[in-house]
Amino acid sequence: MKLVTFRPTVDAAARLGVIEEGLVVDVAYLGAVMGEDFPDTMLDLIDLGPAALARISDALDECRSTWPIGSALPIENVKLLAPIPRPRKNIFGIGLNYLEHVAESSRTLDTSKDLPTQPVIFSKPPTTVIGPGDAIEHNAAITQQLDWEVELAVIMGRTARRVTEDDALRHVFGYSVMIDVSARDNRRAGQWIYSKGMDTYAPFGPCIVTADEIADPQNLNLWLTVNGVEKQNSNTKFMLFKIPTLISDISQGITLEPGDIIATGTPEGVGAGRDPQEWLWPGDVVEAHVEAIGTIRHPVVKVG
Amino acid sequence: MKLVTFRPTVDAAARLGVIEEGLVVDVAYLGAVMGEDFPDTMLDLIDLGPAALARISDALDECRSTWPIGSALPIENVKLLAPIPRPRKNIFGIGLNYLEHVAESSRTLDTSKDLPTQPVIFSKPPTTVIGPGDAIEHNAAITQQLDWEVELAVIMGRTARRVTEDDALRHVFGYSVMIDVSARDNRRAGQWIYSKGMDTYAPFGPCIVTADEIADPQNLNLWLTVNGVEKQNSNTKFMLFKIPTLISDISQGITLEPGDIIATGTPEGVGAGRDPQEWLWPGDVVEAHVEAIGTIRHPVVKVG
Repeated sequence: MKLVTFRPTVDAAARLGVIEEGLVVDVAYLGAVMGEDFPDTMLDLIDLGPAALARISDALDECRSTWPIGSALPIENVKLLAPIPRPRKNIFGIGLNYLEHVAESSRTLDTSKDLPTQPVIFSKPPTTVIGPGDAIEHNAAITQQLDWEVELAVIMGRTARRVTEDDALRHVFGYSVMIDVSARDNRRAGQWIYSKGMDTYAPFGPCIVTADEIADPQNLNLWLTVNGVEKQNSNTKFMLFKIPTLISDISQGITLEPGDIIATGTPEGVGAGRDPQEWLWPGDVVEAHVEAIGTIRHPVVKVG
Repeated sequence: MKLVTFRPTVDAAARLGVIEEGLVVDVAYLGAVMGEDFPDTMLDLIDLGPAALARISDALDECRSTWPIGSALPIENVKLLAPIPRPRKNIFGIGLNYLEHVAESSRTLDTSKDLPTQPVIFSKPPTTVIGPGDAIEHNAAITQQLDWEVELAVIMGRTARRVTEDDALRHVFGYSVMIDVSARDNRRAGQWIYSKGMDTYAPFGPCIVTADEIADPQNLNLWLTVNGVEKQNSNTKFMLFKIPTLISDISQGITLEPGDIIATGTPEGVGAGRDPQEWLWPGDVVEAHVEAIGTIRHPVVKVG
């Protein structure tokens, strides 16, 4: 299932939807038509667990031949929001998780050239999240080194506390696309939260694909372009720490909860690693894609 | 006003309370008696803004001579929780924000001996929060270097986006005590979220003192003991970056929201900086105090 959060009209409240061949099906509306009490937010759905997902899937199967009047809208006529517009805690980010990116970072940033021996974790506040098409803010008073990083995002479905690697993927709800925007010149004594944590620095979407539909999350192509020029192009198989390791490792000390988001790191090709270095500026357009999930496209705009 | 979150009985839902001379006054209950609709959680109160606080203050003034039956409970008969048991995002932590602590850190940890030129920011997930008396978990499989840090916590009352230092304190709701527990041996490529972000690593309480009752937040004594032995004893006047600077600085890039918590850094005397180094172990008891706010006391227990 490809799940989205959307507004049917510009001013309407956000709703939970499912993408079905160019349409967005309004989950709670469909439920009301069918006499079922379906959730109307992504976090409610995640909290309800697999049984709710199965019931929605059954309802979709039943209605797919003819969608009940008012339950399906053309996707180009709705406003997509981030799948989880407001996470309940900071997003967990993973740094230095692709081989070549470790090398390019060490050449130009303050990171080590040695591969990390354990996952490198940082966080991005909920205020970083923007939805498909929303603007990435460029504040020239703060940064002259705004950079891109395409990433596979993992959305947790169950509470994970000291889980093993073998058991880890069972706790995943689904997968999405995130750009880990970074103001490289705003690291503070090596801490990344400020450089990666500013408002609008987590473009997120266009949907969450449920885990059952991703056969192998470690074999997904991902790419990023700036103004149509390819900057990153790799595959999640090149992650240093694979998703089960990330979940197991974090959960040894930090309980992961339903709705938690882990941005799993970026491959080579970031602006900081290029020769000469390249940065994002107002007027640029960044597009990021992960195979089997989709594409998000964001303009960079001047603020401040 | 000294605001608390408490359970009147072990199994009861959490309620908002005010400390009044050895009693906890149940705010929503008092409101019901008086025909007022008062909030029953701290975050609701903060969201409602100064007018709600003023109405509660008036109600307390009116009732102080004789509390309505059932509205006041002896403080020793209730279970105090963290004032905000579940923050809506990670706590903002400030590192290296007292002169002597910068020196002690550089001697034994991987931080610079130079004073930071800008605030050093990190974060602690909401799952770190525990209330007065709750246990700090010691997992020997993960850490042999569990350390203490007493801090003044600032609780935001209004949205702060690019505020000036002059305007910053107007956005503060109140002040509390937090221990920034740290597993020093769990830093990852210099990032602190894992070492400072594990479950139970943010003892928080016993109350939030509203900003109007703290004449000068930069002149508060604070101390910490382990098993009754004083380890830290300083004053918030020794902060390198004062509270207005912290708020203004963070808010240039990261919008601060009502209910956000900033742990403002710790003075010298942490375990890592002692010769020989000292760490927390199961059976230890940590007590932390900030003047005009109160004391929290936490046992360290074995888990894992």
